[in-house]
Amino acid sequence: MPPVISLIGKPDCGKTTLLEKLIPELKSRGYRVGTIKHHVHEFTMDHEGKDTWRHKKAGAGVVALSSPTGLGVIRDTDHDSQVAELTARYFYDVDLVITEGYKHLNLPKIEVFRSAIHQTPLANRDQTWIAMVSDIKIDAALPHFLPADVIGVADFLIDHFILAQLKPEATLLVDGQVIPLNSFVETFIRQSVLGMISSLKGCRDPKEITITIRNDQTGKN
Amino acid sequence: MPPVISLIGKPDCGKTTLLEKLIPELKSRGYRVGTIKHHVHEFTMDHEGKDTWRHKKAGAGVVALSSPTGLGVIRDTDHDSQVAELTARYFYDVDLVITEGYKHLNLPKIEVFRSAIHQTPLANRDQTWIAMVSDIKIDAALPHFLPADVIGVADFLIDHFILAQLKPEATLLVDGQVIPLNSFVETFIRQSVLGMISSLKGCRDPKEITITIRNDQTGKN
Repeated sequence: MPPVISLIGKPDCGKTTLLEKLIPELKSRGYRVGTIKHHVHEFTMDHEGKDTWRHKKAGAGVVALSSPTGLGVIRDTDHDSQVAELTARYFYDVDLVITEGYKHLNLPKIEVFRSAIHQTPLANRDQTWIAMVSDIKIDAALPHFLPADVIGVADFLIDHFILAQLKPEATLLVDGQVIPLNSFVETFIRQSVLGMISSLKGCRDPKEITITIRNDQTGKN
Repeated sequence: MPPVISLIGKPDCGKTTLLEKLIPELKSRGYRVGTIKHHVHEFTMDHEGKDTWRHKKAGAGVVALSSPTGLGVIRDTDHDSQVAELTARYFYDVDLVITEGYKHLNLPKIEVFRSAIHQTPLANRDQTWIAMVSDIKIDAALPHFLPADVIGVADFLIDHFILAQLKPEATLLVDGQVIPLNSFVETFIRQSVLGMISSLKGCRDPKEITITIRNDQTGKN
C-alpha cells in the first residue's frame, strides 16, 4: 500500500489550500497523489437527476460512471470505512495518500496552523505529529514549514514517506480488514502468487496484480 | 465476479426508468445490484467547489470521500475502462451488475423499446440479445416482457444470471486486464490463497479476500 499521511488542523486553517499547491508540486516531480476526505455528515457526491444518481436512489449498492478520462464509483456503506481498507482497495497505483479530516487516527500527521485565524493549534499533539505548517513556529521539536514553502513540504514527504516505501509488496484484505503481514509472510504470499500466475497468458512481467476471491456467494441478506 | 448484463435501447426508450423499478425489485428479494453507466463525453461527478473537487482539480489521481453511510471514489483514467476490470475491482460484493450504454460490447443484452417513441428497435440484433422489454412483441425468438412486468424481468435475471453464478470463485486482474482462468487454474489459485492465509489472525472463515501486489513500485512517470 502507498504511505498515508494526514493533513489536520482547525477549521479554515488552510488544509485544502495547502493541498491544492502540494498535489501539483508532487505531480510535477513525477509522483501520483491520492486524497481521502473524511465526511461525518450525510453523503453527497454526484448530481441530482443524473442517471447514476437515479440508479443509486433506486437502491443500487454500487454505481460506477465510466468515461475515457475519468471513473467515478459510489457505494453504500453501513460503517465508516477504514483508511487502510480504502488505501488497499482504491489507491493501488498512487505513491502517496494524503487524508483530510482523520485527526483521531494513528496516522502520521502534519498540522496546518495560522495564527491570524486561531489562537492555538490543536491541543492533543502527540508522537504521530511529524511536522507543522504554520506562519509562526510552534513546536521546537517538530520540523516547521511556512505555508508558502510547498517545495519544502514536498521534499519532506518524498524523503520520509514516498522513497521509503518504493518496494514490491503484497497487501491482504479479508472481509474489509487489512491483515497485517510480517516481512516473511508478505514475501511468501507475493512470491507464491507471482509463481502461480507466471505461466498464464498476459501475466508476463506484471506490475500490479489483484486477486479477488468470493468464498461465500450466497450474497443474500 | 458477479454476472453482468447490459440494458440497451435507443435514446428515451425507458432504460433508466426500467432500472429504477428493477433495482428495488431485486433488492426486495435480497440481491445486491450494481450499475455501470458508460459516458462518452467529458466526465462529471462531484460538486464544483467541494474539497474533493478541489483535490481532483489540483491533480490528485484518485480522490475518495468517505462517510459512515457512503463512499465515493473518483479517479483519472487515460482510457475507457473495461467492464470486466470495473466489475472485478469495484463490484466484488454485488450479485448482479447492470450496465447502461455498452451496446457494442459482447455482454448479454436486454433491449428496451417503446413503439410510441421509436419506429424500430436497434438494427444490429445478434446472439447477445437475451430478451426484449417492449410495449409490442418484436422478435418471436426472444423472451418478451412488457415494460410494466418488472417482476417478470427480475425472475428472468435471477434464474438465468444470479443463481447460475452463486459459487465461490477467484478473479485475477493483472495490470488492469482480467485474466481468463479455466476451472482448474481458478480452483488452484483460490485454494492456494485460502491455504496460505488460513493460519493468519483475522482470516478464519473469510468471505471476501483481496490480495493486491505492487511489483514495480517506482511509480514515476
